[in-house]
Amino acid sequence: MPLPAPQLPESAAGSTAPAKLHLYTAGTPNGYKPSILLEELRLAYPDLKNGALSYDFTSLSFANKEQKDPEYLKINPNGRIPALVDDNAGGHNVFESASILIWLVENYDKDNHFWFSDAKLRSKALSWIFFAHGGVGPMQGQANHFYRYAPEKIPYGVKRYQEETARLYSVLEDGLNAGKGEWLVGDKYSIADINVFGWVRSYAWAGIDITPFPKLAAWIDRIESRPGAYAGLGVPTRGKKLTKEEEEEKAKEAQAWIMADQKK
Amino acid sequence: MPLPAPQLPESAAGSTAPAKLHLYTAGTPNGYKPSILLEELRLAYPDLKNGALSYDFTSLSFANKEQKDPEYLKINPNGRIPALVDDNAGGHNVFESASILIWLVENYDKDNHFWFSDAKLRSKALSWIFFAHGGVGPMQGQANHFYRYAPEKIPYGVKRYQEETARLYSVLEDGLNAGKGEWLVGDKYSIADINVFGWVRSYAWAGIDITPFPKLAAWIDRIESRPGAYAGLGVPTRGKKLTKEEEEEKAKEAQAWIMADQKK
Repeated sequence: MPLPAPQLPESAAGSTAPAKLHLYTAGTPNGYKPSILLEELRLAYPDLKNGALSYDFTSLSFANKEQKDPEYLKINPNGRIPALVDDNAGGHNVFESASILIWLVENYDKDNHFWFSDAKLRSKALSWIFFAHGGVGPMQGQANHFYRYAPEKIPYGVKRYQEETARLYSVLEDGLNAGKGEWLVGDKYSIADINVFGWVRSYAWAGIDITPFPKLAAWIDRIESRPGAYAGLGVPTRGKKLTKEEEEEKAKEAQAWIMADQKK
Repeated sequence: MPLPAPQLPESAAGSTAPAKLHLYTAGTPNGYKPSILLEELRLAYPDLKNGALSYDFTSLSFANKEQKDPEYLKINPNGRIPALVDDNAGGHNVFESASILIWLVENYDKDNHFWFSDAKLRSKALSWIFFAHGGVGPMQGQANHFYRYAPEKIPYGVKRYQEETARLYSVLEDGLNAGKGEWLVGDKYSIADINVFGWVRSYAWAGIDITPFPKLAAWIDRIESRPGAYAGLGVPTRGKKLTKEEEEEKAKEAQAWIMADQKK
């Protein structure tokens, strides 16, 4: 079965430029990272918008196991989203969301709008990026699993991962406070922020209370109000605010394919 | 309570060089990453051994919660090991194991013995490093938790994380097969290997069977037989092969502080 046809983002409306970058994604916290950065870069570098930074995206369906398709496994051997293929670099493939962010800033952000020329700030940003990639992402993912998807109710699992996620949020809150309170590194919006934003923004889905973290709550709003982030959150499709019933329906659908996958 | 006094590694025997790098660590899969790379670098660059690459280490006790000491939280706000302070760079602090590896190769591996000058190989290595940091580490850590430490026996948790860890091992096995079968990236031993080695080496502690992954099993032996890796595995102390009874005793001790921490 071939992968779904690539689509163009709204920001490419009216353009006939061939897509140079090919994103494979889905509407998840990890999936939004590269589309947000791509849209931010296209705004920051209008001269590259219909050139090196033109992109299309393929929306993969987990329910249809498209992320495990042999064709896709050549791009990401782990069978997860997101991944990127870069035709500006001979079809170079990049997997893992944070690895994609770093590839994009190193190749397309020559003025360091979202990255750092200073080696210590770059290192500080990497520390926060790994903190999110090894902590917030996986732990909040497990909170989602036990809170939303697991077929058995296991209070131990719900409590363990919700508490750990909240603890990690408190570290982020202190991280914001260590600067001027607005951004994680160097008092500048960077991929250190983009890399963890999608997760923190989805706190409610994991059953986490955001009120103990006012700096973080304001930081979510600050990022969401950026045109680039807003555009990136529309790829592959813009989520809408769900009612309680719709939330439960969504969790049930996800539960079906997650458990089918787990049993195999 | 002050942190424990720093110690010198065996490889510094006879040297009076002041330590320029200060490692904070413990004998865990994440803890071994930087000590292995430091020892490898000291062998690869003998002219730096008693200069920029001289180091000491502080062995933190989880049982005494030393990783949550306010003095240490200034170095790593997440209160986890490892972390590094670099006096060659004005006391710059680096946290998260993979972030430390990158800092060390970018600053002390000018000939790219363990890193890559080619941008695509560097990117490929980063994809594997993030794969390990967001996948193997956290998932095998959860397998350890449910298999060894959790006070309730929760078969669902044991199965979920052991199966996911084994799946991630199969991706690594295929990754080795994609090259000449010896190393993950560029047919060269690099920090992509060092970054995940400590975890895979500890498969038995997580209750994972290594026999379905012969390439990976040979890769463990290949790394362990390197003098640098061997030396790095001796920091903070060299573990010994445990009997079944000693294993259970160790798990019980760990359980005590893990659960005390979780309840707080």
